[in-house]
Amino acid sequence: MTQVSEAHATLVADALVWAEMRGMDTHGVMRAPRYVDLIRRGELNPVPRIHRAMETPAAVVLDCERAAGAVAMMEGTRAACEKAKHSGVGLALVKATTHTGALGYYTQSAAREGYAAIALAASVPLMAYHGTRGAAVGTAPLSIAVPGADEPLALDMASSLISMGALMRSRASGAPIPPGAALAADGSPTTDSRRASIPLPLGGPKGSGLAFMFECLASLLTGNPILAEALEGRGRHRQNGLVIAMDVARFVPLAEFRREITRLAAALRKLPADGEILMPGERGARNAARQRAALEIDAGVYAELTALNSDPGS
Amino acid sequence: MTQVSEAHATLVADALVWAEMRGMDTHGVMRAPRYVDLIRRGELNPVPRIHRAMETPAAVVLDCERAAGAVAMMEGTRAACEKAKHSGVGLALVKATTHTGALGYYTQSAAREGYAAIALAASVPLMAYHGTRGAAVGTAPLSIAVPGADEPLALDMASSLISMGALMRSRASGAPIPPGAALAADGSPTTDSRRASIPLPLGGPKGSGLAFMFECLASLLTGNPILAEALEGRGRHRQNGLVIAMDVARFVPLAEFRREITRLAAALRKLPADGEILMPGERGARNAARQRAALEIDAGVYAELTALNSDPGS
Repeated sequence: MTQVSEAHATLVADALVWAEMRGMDTHGVMRAPRYVDLIRRGELNPVPRIHRAMETPAAVVLDCERAAGAVAMMEGTRAACEKAKHSGVGLALVKATTHTGALGYYTQSAAREGYAAIALAASVPLMAYHGTRGAAVGTAPLSIAVPGADEPLALDMASSLISMGALMRSRASGAPIPPGAALAADGSPTTDSRRASIPLPLGGPKGSGLAFMFECLASLLTGNPILAEALEGRGRHRQNGLVIAMDVARFVPLAEFRREITRLAAALRKLPADGEILMPGERGARNAARQRAALEIDAGVYAELTALNSDPGS
Repeated sequence: MTQVSEAHATLVADALVWAEMRGMDTHGVMRAPRYVDLIRRGELNPVPRIHRAMETPAAVVLDCERAAGAVAMMEGTRAACEKAKHSGVGLALVKATTHTGALGYYTQSAAREGYAAIALAASVPLMAYHGTRGAAVGTAPLSIAVPGADEPLALDMASSLISMGALMRSRASGAPIPPGAALAADGSPTTDSRRASIPLPLGGPKGSGLAFMFECLASLLTGNPILAEALEGRGRHRQNGLVIAMDVARFVPLAEFRREITRLAAALRKLPADGEILMPGERGARNAARQRAALEIDAGVYAELTALNSDPGS
């Protein structure tokens, strides 16, 4: 099998461990064997030559030749930031990548450098489109991060009522899923986690509308449609992404921005509440801090990773 | 009272009638008397001199001097499109405006000119922040529109489980609101529409995370914080907005983009469903077509508008 470069392998591993440490285990190290599968099936290109298919002083389209998601999206993030440094705002369209993983990894890397960043991704059909009874659109992941006083503040969400990962976890444990959150493969509503496979969109037409628009922005603007291809029966694993960066210091002094974020968080924390009030991304940052000394990995996943490591075919 | 220019008055009226015709009556003509109130209270500046506070070839900050929302946001939309025409992508930050209304009015006007457009707005506290029991953040309206084969396709959503308008309507009719959708002023959950006043965020931390980030992007990047000011007790009516435009033809031929949108819609419409499958914005476009001959307005609103028209003070 063609060798992935050490730089690319290190980046993918770092993105997976980052998600694992923040508590997003479904976007964590359990993905490594899946990525190897994607390489074996010829869907993930281990030696992509990412190139700029279109470029202006503020925007760029990166043709990623089915690169690993972390490799393509980090290249996109760096390009969007470079454009934003020049023009105040920068757009990178990431064409033809694979599983983009936890988008917060990219937006937070930009936020640590002083950018406000938005990232989104389009994928093959997984979630129902409002009113339909089949997998129709991606789960429309979206991340927005901004520089904070210390760590970035970051939203990292999917536009489904229940994530694919939570579905898989419920299936493993046999726990029921909440009513109205997912459909079985035959399109019938179910709370039985052994049958549930199609998440429903958050807010009905809102969640599926976001997924529709992410396909338009990331896939149709790059001339690489995913949903129509898949719905017409020519589907294979692939994703497209989009990153927008804004250079905070071009708009307001970065120190003032950090001060205002702290002020906003303080004002929100003073509100009446039943428990602790968390800012976007704070739970993940705490999980990461707690797991810095020792990262707990699911025993099954650990066994899979060990097997992968000793597999001569990989 | 200072006279609003005919151009500005016409634009505001057009935006309100547009929303009314599309079925968004809570963002329709019932707002006209509220806008006059805002002028009387000195919160809406009838004669703003909108100026560019910061500018690059791709980005601009418009200081809108408390202009009417439609005036400020249309200026922002035009500026974002002008930047996108030059640079592929354009960002306009709309600083210091008032009620921005139905954001789809702006994104759709851009989409009709061949742009993909994103608009969002930040407002005073209306919705609960996840985990709190008080009005803490805006309802985080977001619109994304793209050129369609004929009319633009457009998502136009708030990030609350129930809109402020739907709350007001339920209150007028006395109908209960769905459980878990809103809080009473004292922070207790309620289904009683006479008591419900604070909508809860869509998807808990997702909806309130979007609202937090919209404040960071539209308000903190323009040095015009709304939420912290209001939560600290110095609130008054105001909003900030953000418009991003992408010039479709710089990325793919516009005809190809329109063809692909049509193909995507056709593929989605073939999915198993219980009823008709609507594309984003389609319901609104149908409402508008149906009401083109005769627009039905609520009798109470009509009386208020008539009174406003004959009021010498206005």
